[in-house]
Amino acid sequence: LSANSITIALDAMGGDMGPRATVGGAALAFRQNPNLKFALFGRSSDIEVQLKRFPALRAVSSVHHCDQVVLADDKPSIALRQGRDSSMRKAIDAVSHGMAGAVVSSGNTGALMAMAKMVLKTMPGVHRPAIASVFPTIKGQIMMLDLGANIECDAEMLVQFAVLGAVYARVVEGIERPSVGLLNVGSEEMKGHDELRQAARILNGIKFPGRYHGFIEGNDIPMGITDVVVTDGFSGNVAIKVAEGVGKLTGHFIRQAFKSSPFAMLGALLAYGGMKRLKHRVDPRLYNGGMFLGLNGICVKSHGGSDDVGVANAILRAAELVHHGFNVQVAAEIESVMGQESFLSPVNGDGV
Amino acid sequence: LSANSITIALDAMGGDMGPRATVGGAALAFRQNPNLKFALFGRSSDIEVQLKRFPALRAVSSVHHCDQVVLADDKPSIALRQGRDSSMRKAIDAVSHGMAGAVVSSGNTGALMAMAKMVLKTMPGVHRPAIASVFPTIKGQIMMLDLGANIECDAEMLVQFAVLGAVYARVVEGIERPSVGLLNVGSEEMKGHDELRQAARILNGIKFPGRYHGFIEGNDIPMGITDVVVTDGFSGNVAIKVAEGVGKLTGHFIRQAFKSSPFAMLGALLAYGGMKRLKHRVDPRLYNGGMFLGLNGICVKSHGGSDDVGVANAILRAAELVHHGFNVQVAAEIESVMGQESFLSPVNGDGV
Repeated sequence: LSANSITIALDAMGGDMGPRATVGGAALAFRQNPNLKFALFGRSSDIEVQLKRFPALRAVSSVHHCDQVVLADDKPSIALRQGRDSSMRKAIDAVSHGMAGAVVSSGNTGALMAMAKMVLKTMPGVHRPAIASVFPTIKGQIMMLDLGANIECDAEMLVQFAVLGAVYARVVEGIERPSVGLLNVGSEEMKGHDELRQAARILNGIKFPGRYHGFIEGNDIPMGITDVVVTDGFSGNVAIKVAEGVGKLTGHFIRQAFKSSPFAMLGALLAYGGMKRLKHRVDPRLYNGGMFLGLNGICVKSHGGSDDVGVANAILRAAELVHHGFNVQVAAEIESVMGQESFLSPVNGDGV
Repeated sequence: LSANSITIALDAMGGDMGPRATVGGAALAFRQNPNLKFALFGRSSDIEVQLKRFPALRAVSSVHHCDQVVLADDKPSIALRQGRDSSMRKAIDAVSHGMAGAVVSSGNTGALMAMAKMVLKTMPGVHRPAIASVFPTIKGQIMMLDLGANIECDAEMLVQFAVLGAVYARVVEGIERPSVGLLNVGSEEMKGHDELRQAARILNGIKFPGRYHGFIEGNDIPMGITDVVVTDGFSGNVAIKVAEGVGKLTGHFIRQAFKSSPFAMLGALLAYGGMKRLKHRVDPRLYNGGMFLGLNGICVKSHGGSDDVGVANAILRAAELVHHGFNVQVAAEIESVMGQESFLSPVNGDGV
């Protein structure tokens, strides 16, 4: 076995498709990254049935039986108190015990965040963890956070998210000085909440592993105007869900257009290759994986509706964070940023 | 002249294309609605040159010379103080003097809102005006507000926006009991800001000219889950701009797909009719017109980049609001809603 092997703790029961998709996804990920090993948590009989399909995966996996499963509609507070023996909780425990480098789950987002925060704890110096993900743009891809962990964010939290995002773009994507934009309703300095204006002032004053671009607007995200987009969890969540919905709507309209006449149907056949590449380019499964950043341990949330391909991408994303030592780098950068003078004594508010 | 004639006060100088687009737009709108008359404000020589192209429009238009023009990057506060002789201000004045039924401008949004608020004043009982617009969905169209007038909104404002939206959907779109959704990050009752939860409680308790649907998420908007979407101006602005950006991105990818091979190019030719209908269906120009609701007078903001088609749609939207007596109906409904017990004594917050 390679010295660089990375063990992923997988909540095999999470998501609408359960072990079929999680184990299938592990097999797919393993084919792409042979350094992976797996610790699978859940009903062992269900997991073993699926593992039979993938002998190579079976050889690098351990199965850990758990009777309990956190359900999609369980309240996070209930899951936290009553889910101590759940597959989700045990998979997170595996990271805190050093048995795995990262945990991946397609289960209940709120429960996963609550458990991950309690078990792994927030990184020293980080105020609150954030959920981050990458999305396709006209130029390539963009990294955005927070996507829903924090409904309200103060200026310091937004600045820390900028650091988390910049470290990700530099360490994982290899961008030397990633540009970071703050999502606002206009690019002028006086626009938006007081927290945003204060975050902008701090980002203009500190040294951090990125370059502060300024305020950006919603339409700048798909254009890839910056490498990283920082926003509060409410707006971030609205933004990604609107994008998802518009994508679906467009797909529906395109299918209608291609069905509108025999000529259009023939046209669709001829354009099949190109349309297939387009579909691939915006395939949400390839961007699956909400990274919980700012915890003492890597935790990635896979979409509840994920199939094998989606789960595989969430696993590969988690493995990348481990491989590049993301958390070690973040810890150092957060410490450096928080100690800088312009962070400690920002020019105060606008009297709002 | 018809007894039903509606006069539109048009800021002829607003927008990137100036009088060419505004006068051209007026001509287009007039062709679709012969009950329209126009009062055109701006540099008379520039306007007259354009009017020469449209003798029929000339016959129903008056031209009012103004030397001043509010520029796209003028600060609203400056425009307010120094723009008393501007085409934008004079067009708004025309509504307050009863000379026109509505004002339409493609100029600076912030300045237009500031001037409209000062001149027309907020409707009795309405806390703050909102910007509203309609968007295409899988089912037809949806009306959404606020899109940027109010960065922060309390529960009462959100409830009033729900009333404004419901009256619009009923009076203008003819939907008997329009459904109204509150934009949130999840559909569960405990999700989101305290203001949202309180607004939900009030909407559940009052009688208003719509049906409260509950919380909706960003992806529900393009699916047309409700007739009206209510949100604060920050999230609303992010939502429409993300949708605009994703639409642009998809258009770019589709063009790339059709150019990817000779087969695809032939396919594009064959599917041309269907694709053209698709493009028409999501054409942002057809949905142009940000309605400023809650003022004592109809004011519609046309997109700064609007051409004739865009301006025409903003004018037709303004005319519809006048034609259906939107403001009279809203005034009555706001008064009724604000007097209801569950509005006056909402169960108070969650201690947040």
